Amino acid sequence: MATDTSSTSSSNKRQKTTGEKPFRLIYWPGIPGRGEHIRLAFEATGTPYTDVAKTDSAIPTITNLISEDNTGDDHHNPPPFAPPILQHGDDVLISQTSNILLYLGPKLGLVPDPKEDPVGLYHVNALALTALDGLSNEPHDVHHPIAVGLYYEDQKTEALRRAKDYRENRLPKFLGYFERVLSGKAGGRSGEGGYLYGGKLTYADLVLFQCLDGLSFAFPNYIKKIRESGQYDRVWKLYERVKGLETIKSYLKSERRVEYGMGIYRHYPELDDEE
Amino acid sequence: MATDTSSTSSSNKRQKTTGEKPFRLIYWPGIPGRGEHIRLAFEATGTPYTDVAKTDSAIPTITNLISEDNTGDDHHNPPPFAPPILQHGDDVLISQTSNILLYLGPKLGLVPDPKEDPVGLYHVNALALTALDGLSNEPHDVHHPIAVGLYYEDQKTEALRRAKDYRENRLPKFLGYFERVLSGKAGGRSGEGGYLYGGKLTYADLVLFQCLDGLSFAFPNYIKKIRESGQYDRVWKLYERVKGLETIKSYLKSERRVEYGMGIYRHYPELDDEE
Repeated sequence: MATDTSSTSSSNKRQKTTGEKPFRLIYWPGIPGRGEHIRLAFEATGTPYTDVAKTDSAIPTITNLISEDNTGDDHHNPPPFAPPILQHGDDVLISQTSNILLYLGPKLGLVPDPKEDPVGLYHVNALALTALDGLSNEPHDVHHPIAVGLYYEDQKTEALRRAKDYRENRLPKFLGYFERVLSGKAGGRSGEGGYLYGGKLTYADLVLFQCLDGLSFAFPNYIKKIRESGQYDRVWKLYERVKGLETIKSYLKSERRVEYGMGIYRHYPELDDEE
Repeated sequence: MATDTSSTSSSNKRQKTTGEKPFRLIYWPGIPGRGEHIRLAFEATGTPYTDVAKTDSAIPTITNLISEDNTGDDHHNPPPFAPPILQHGDDVLISQTSNILLYLGPKLGLVPDPKEDPVGLYHVNALALTALDGLSNEPHDVHHPIAVGLYYEDQKTEALRRAKDYRENRLPKFLGYFERVLSGKAGGRSGEGGYLYGGKLTYADLVLFQCLDGLSFAFPNYIKKIRESGQYDRVWKLYERVKGLETIKSYLKSERRVEYGMGIYRHYPELDDEE
């Protein structure tokens, strides 16, 4: 039986000896999903963490936490609405993807130093929220435009309509936005930093990377076309830059990276462009 | 012609003399929309602010900021994706509803004191994000399930289907969640605090209030039924508690409060329960 501590990042040794509180990511097994954004933050920075999705206790842990009987705990943590959920030590339990990243950002060095740039954290958060809105939540709604509780097949007609609008209007709008951010002064010291904000890797870059990777799985024909068009070159350069980071490269090759499937990013050929 | 400074909160005088940087809310005129969450934070705390929506410069200000030519400014603010946008002094420009609230929270006293409760801010943020997801974004998607760029009439068939699912499944799930939060220990010192977190008003309460108010406009029959059922009594007690705060009471009576219309919360009788 797998134990909770078996699937820590292999790129760094666990630092339990330093007395730091351990990080535990609680997310559904079998899909990258929203948990992947948290995983990438740990992996990019070589931070040890326990990935509960890789253990036998994943499902019972989650169902207990989101159960209708859970009204919160004795440490004043409210009940989480849904995973991903971050447990930090014995007493901190935090939910909502962007919120977990916000909590981790300063701890993992994935936001600007607040002494040098006290507003940077908010800019990073806004960029992450925008990517999650348009490049993660919307792609999910493309295959589930009517009800999350129904099968895709039961809303396929509507999904076809929504997918067309997403490819033709929404995706270009969001990709164009990030292209614009990357061409501006906030990205690098001189607009050539190559990261979304402050010339250094932040969690906004990791979120955008994961969204672009998921979109490439869901809409391969569409993404191939727009990459070939050169229209969003800065965006795809950022994608490759993150993908090429040593920590990320070794993570993506490892068994810790979960394959896409029936999660947020799904490949239904009829929702993609024709070849 | 209206000027930028004409529509500050009348409950407090402007504090320009203290040398504090002024707050300026940039949002579309004519609808409460997502801007309303920011407005309520200012109004609840009697904080002076300029409401650009009430001035002639609203539309040009917004279209300039979200223009495809805007790549950010000389203060390292990235371009905003969409309003609401908060301008703080001459140098800070922040976007995304939950992010603006996060920025304002400590400044306006709408989050727990970080010295007493360093994690409280993240709990408040998670609660606000959950309310915005399920009780603001989803109600919008109920009348626009296919494309934001199309008219309601062009997606009415799909909207009818989605509205049914929203009333039967999603709304009860989110209301049940907040009822559960309010019954737990994180809400008050003894579960009787009557606020979502920490026994005191936070911006999460204001967000939930505004969502419930908007839902009452959009789905009056449905909301009447569930209020009469007594199933979510804590939720509606919170709603009335916020509504009864002196600052909020006088704001809601004032001309500063914008009426609902064709924004996020729309009243289409066919999307509501029958009487």
